[in-house]
Amino acid sequence: MFTACALAATVTAVSAKEIIHDAQFGILERQHGEKWAAQDKEIEKKLAEIREKNGGKRPNIVYILVDDLSYGQMGSRKMNHVMGVDTKNINKFANESLSLERMYTEPSCTPTRAAMMTGRHPIRSGSSEVKVTLVGEGLSKEEVTIAEVLSESGYSTAHIGKWHQGDIEESYPHNQGFDFAAFPAHQQVQLSLMTKEAALANNLFGWHDSMQNNDFVIDKTFRPNGMVTGLEARKGKKAKEVHMPAGHEWSQADYHAMNVRYQKQAIEQLQQLSKFDKPFYLQYWPLYPLNFAHDQTPNKSRNGGFMAEKLQLLDTWFGEFLAELDNLGIADNTLVVLMADNGLMYHYGGPSGLSELIYRGGKTDFLEGGIRVDAYVRWPDVIEANTAASDMVHVSDLFTTIANIGQATDNIPHDRVIDGIDQTALLLEGEHNGRRDYVYVYQGDRLAAVVKDEFKMHMPSPGMPGAAAPVFNVLRDPREENPHIGMALWSGASFQDMIKRHMMTIQKYPHLPLGKGQPYSGIENLRPETKKLVDDFMSWH
Amino acid sequence: MFTACALAATVTAVSAKEIIHDAQFGILERQHGEKWAAQDKEIEKKLAEIREKNGGKRPNIVYILVDDLSYGQMGSRKMNHVMGVDTKNINKFANESLSLERMYTEPSCTPTRAAMMTGRHPIRSGSSEVKVTLVGEGLSKEEVTIAEVLSESGYSTAHIGKWHQGDIEESYPHNQGFDFAAFPAHQQVQLSLMTKEAALANNLFGWHDSMQNNDFVIDKTFRPNGMVTGLEARKGKKAKEVHMPAGHEWSQADYHAMNVRYQKQAIEQLQQLSKFDKPFYLQYWPLYPLNFAHDQTPNKSRNGGFMAEKLQLLDTWFGEFLAELDNLGIADNTLVVLMADNGLMYHYGGPSGLSELIYRGGKTDFLEGGIRVDAYVRWPDVIEANTAASDMVHVSDLFTTIANIGQATDNIPHDRVIDGIDQTALLLEGEHNGRRDYVYVYQGDRLAAVVKDEFKMHMPSPGMPGAAAPVFNVLRDPREENPHIGMALWSGASFQDMIKRHMMTIQKYPHLPLGKGQPYSGIENLRPETKKLVDDFMSWH
Repeated sequence: MFTACALAATVTAVSAKEIIHDAQFGILERQHGEKWAAQDKEIEKKLAEIREKNGGKRPNIVYILVDDLSYGQMGSRKMNHVMGVDTKNINKFANESLSLERMYTEPSCTPTRAAMMTGRHPIRSGSSEVKVTLVGEGLSKEEVTIAEVLSESGYSTAHIGKWHQGDIEESYPHNQGFDFAAFPAHQQVQLSLMTKEAALANNLFGWHDSMQNNDFVIDKTFRPNGMVTGLEARKGKKAKEVHMPAGHEWSQADYHAMNVRYQKQAIEQLQQLSKFDKPFYLQYWPLYPLNFAHDQTPNKSRNGGFMAEKLQLLDTWFGEFLAELDNLGIADNTLVVLMADNGLMYHYGGPSGLSELIYRGGKTDFLEGGIRVDAYVRWPDVIEANTAASDMVHVSDLFTTIANIGQATDNIPHDRVIDGIDQTALLLEGEHNGRRDYVYVYQGDRLAAVVKDEFKMHMPSPGMPGAAAPVFNVLRDPREENPHIGMALWSGASFQDMIKRHMMTIQKYPHLPLGKGQPYSGIENLRPETKKLVDDFMSWH
Repeated sequence: MFTACALAATVTAVSAKEIIHDAQFGILERQHGEKWAAQDKEIEKKLAEIREKNGGKRPNIVYILVDDLSYGQMGSRKMNHVMGVDTKNINKFANESLSLERMYTEPSCTPTRAAMMTGRHPIRSGSSEVKVTLVGEGLSKEEVTIAEVLSESGYSTAHIGKWHQGDIEESYPHNQGFDFAAFPAHQQVQLSLMTKEAALANNLFGWHDSMQNNDFVIDKTFRPNGMVTGLEARKGKKAKEVHMPAGHEWSQADYHAMNVRYQKQAIEQLQQLSKFDKPFYLQYWPLYPLNFAHDQTPNKSRNGGFMAEKLQLLDTWFGEFLAELDNLGIADNTLVVLMADNGLMYHYGGPSGLSELIYRGGKTDFLEGGIRVDAYVRWPDVIEANTAASDMVHVSDLFTTIANIGQATDNIPHDRVIDGIDQTALLLEGEHNGRRDYVYVYQGDRLAAVVKDEFKMHMPSPGMPGAAAPVFNVLRDPREENPHIGMALWSGASFQDMIKRHMMTIQKYPHLPLGKGQPYSGIENLRPETKKLVDDFMSWH
């Protein structure tokens, strides 16, 4: 289709101190670089004034990332009525925030979280695949996370909740820049779907050993048993599995208790971190609303579906979290970001109570339904409340933007591509101050779509010419149902150029490998059943 | 399937003064009648107090009905960002209003408008079909419209804009209770789709004689020529076609001028009606946003599609209309209802700029996308601003509710079924005060679905048992994609009972026929080409 190397010479030369962006960003910088540099000076001044007001202290940053929701499911009263769920605390927060109405994520948990952590498309760090059971892999120690960037510049850091970046020691959050971390080793497939309750409640979906006859099972290792559950650790220390005695069978009750504990720990972290002189970076990544079984509590929502119920619960918890920020008197100097990590796990449509809404598709899809999420950013008196922007943002931009707001940009590595664009101007100056008009959309390892302005090209089938690729106008056709062939013809070449630039950048800065090692390395209290599981795994590695 | 007559004996006996509702409503009245009667007394007192505050004057009522929009396309900033349209005046109005988040209409223009006018399912008045060209039919003089109900009780009445209730004299608005009316004889297929501009702009859709070779045309009457365009008339007078000289070829420019004129006339009516001692009922039913061709004006919206552009224009016009209410000092004693008449004409998806959003389907469909619309009701200091209700409302309820608010209930006829429920309590007391939990959904003459609570049964295919009909939970599955067979089994019998009650009611109070006559009767200045058209029509009648 094209020869990337033929174009390599045109990659913009970067000085040692500059962040290396994708060549596509160079196209924008050539057009707006001077204006942006001038604006950045103004912003620097503004940030300095804010620090001065706060006794020289940089702002605290709270990043709350909610699992698997359709765009519209958080922060909109109207959509609440559609679903029969009342997210009143989130709606209030949205009214106090800048709504980023065109926030793109990756289509699944691990890649989105890796993108935010590293500021890089997950393909660059080998993090584009979602892992469910033991893999002996994880986020490499070579990657530089936002926690490391901020930590090195003097922030306290803590991670609470879902992590999903691997099962080897170097990948754990306390080895990736966090002073403290409480997190499950894996995710909700283990913690909620493979429970007896899920098997009982949704016999088509859940799986549990006791619900099977297993009469013909020859391989007992196909269904894992004894996986590590919740871990806690401090920076530089070994991790410890908590609240999980040897021989105990994990249940929905344990999953619920884990969720309750993370909520409690998130608030405890707020309380502790607010006492320090240092500013803090706290990320709270709840596991709810994702779950796979009704529980016995009476319905709180009109909807009553098992995910809808937990969305409503999460709203209450979010309200309590925000109230604690107020109680502690730190709300004003704290930037709070609330968003979803990707589209809904819509495969559980009906009974879960949550379903596709406006955008088509959900988790795992490259359609807007997989990658467009609700995102709200609050910073009282700094970010104008009750505003909204349609400027494009990619989740990796938070890495660069938060680094800038935390005066930690110098700690961003300069030897690799950073996809995240500094969007501080958008946050502080509002709509029309965004610096991105494109997104490369990956589905796992595959470049699946390219977004530019209101246009979105779905990659042509192999062998199909680029000009014939389906192109959609996502404003006029948000569900991506009516491709404009005519539009592809005028935009086809430009889209192909965008792909060339991206591939050229990859050629110059090749992808880095995922970390490798023994599963559950660095955990000091493995249960006997877990050791057996690791032995089984290592037997064929 | 069942014998309606066997059940007829159970129809609730009604006293001469009581409104006759569908037997299904009797089920609710038996359970809540006493409570509602007590609440009605309180409401009567409240309405009396409001009148007293306004020097004894009953409230003015403005009813604005917008053509063909998906739920979410008016009044939501978030949805504005999805579409790239800014309906800021409507959004502001929505914030000053009670949002009726579960307003059901009929799936097309004529039936929805007939339901509102008569308070009756359009099937009862023969108005369930949409007519495009000459039919010699229309709303019967036997029907009693809300305009007649209010007029008889002392309201001034005016109708501006789309009417679409027939082409015979008795069906025209000035013969159905309006003191003044300015309206097109037909609708947008004639006024915008069958223009040269539409044929040029969207060659697949528009039709215009000049764009065809017509080499094999034998029947010249298949494509009508010379249809009546805009009419104006006063009560008791003949109608007059306006701004349409004989021989003139109608164009998009004429259509635009007509839209501009109706906006101007709506405001003029406000100015005139506000001078009278009498309260007024003004209905303004714009033709835009429905149209079928881009015009030459530069894009005002980010979207730029030809319907999206006119939605944005309509928003500006609505802002001007509201501003005039303020200017005239009558905003406080005026109830304003803004809503869409049915789902989007989504058949023009891509280029129109507007498309399906949350709900599946659009105009003509019995799916929620065809019949769930945005609806906002404002009455300053009476209806609580910035509130929302998920209580079910059917467009026919406005008939009964507006009659009640206008103290004109006694003029509602007592010899026929009125489907409209009095929802004054919902408006004044807010969510949870609705008195409807069901809707019979017709698609033309066919009962296509039945809604009850959050459940919706799609009628089973002929011969299929009722228990096997697909039933959806519209909160958990708003797009009606995953029928719950299990749910149909528990609810099947109850849904069948609902249908029986409805059929029983029809048996007791049979449908009334549509009015019949000569097309364009009662118009004093028919053009020669129109007379030819009428001649052709009459030749086979």
